[in-house]
Amino acid sequence: MSDGRDGATTVFIGLKPTMTYVFQVVTQLNSGPEPVIVKARGNAIGKAVDVVEVVRRRFLEGQVELGRIAIDTERLTNRDGREANVSSISIPLTRTGPLPAATASLPPAERAPADGP
Amino acid sequence: MSDGRDGATTVFIGLKPTMTYVFQVVTQLNSGPEPVIVKARGNAIGKAVDVVEVVRRRFLEGQVELGRIAIDTERLTNRDGREANVSSISIPLTRTGPLPAATASLPPAERAPADGP
Repeated sequence: MSDGRDGATTVFIGLKPTMTYVFQVVTQLNSGPEPVIVKARGNAIGKAVDVVEVVRRRFLEGQVELGRIAIDTERLTNRDGREANVSSISIPLTRTGPLPAATASLPPAERAPADGP
Repeated sequence: MSDGRDGATTVFIGLKPTMTYVFQVVTQLNSGPEPVIVKARGNAIGKAVDVVEVVRRRFLEGQVELGRIAIDTERLTNRDGREANVSSISIPLTRTGPLPAATASLPPAERAPADGP
């Protein structure tokens, strides 16, 4: 997970289970209005599509909008030092519904202490 | 491979090698101006992206345009009779450059005989 220049957060899909990434994406989308970009390369491309579909149809149904999906080819050097082309995908998701009011609904005692006297 | 209602041809990506589908897509794009839609489900999604990337970057570089990529979830019944959700992808490709003039450059004798007297 990393923050892009324009405030978008990128979630890179790797070898962990699909639901691990689903929760990462949902957490990011619930934490602010910035778009979340789900990215994957090679074998993980199918899992990236699964993650986005579970997020938008099960966990945040009607609350996220799919942006323009991009595909690309990246040139990587593998372990033997040889270059190989690997396909990649990038799927932007933006929250359309209101953010959950998590912090605001906590009782005052459980909020982080404020600065000052 | 199948013809859609609006003249688009769909190439379904399955278990065959990537290059088999690359040649199918290139052949279709060379045979007429209709868009070709590359579709895949589940594990084949990554291969669909590979096919499109090889077509547009190696075989028909600068001659095809990528349309709006769609992802979806389909409900399938598997061998045990149980239902499962499977992600799918659909990637439209349209030729932008001129078609290769294959038929026009054949000598008259090799053309299909015309109807009539």
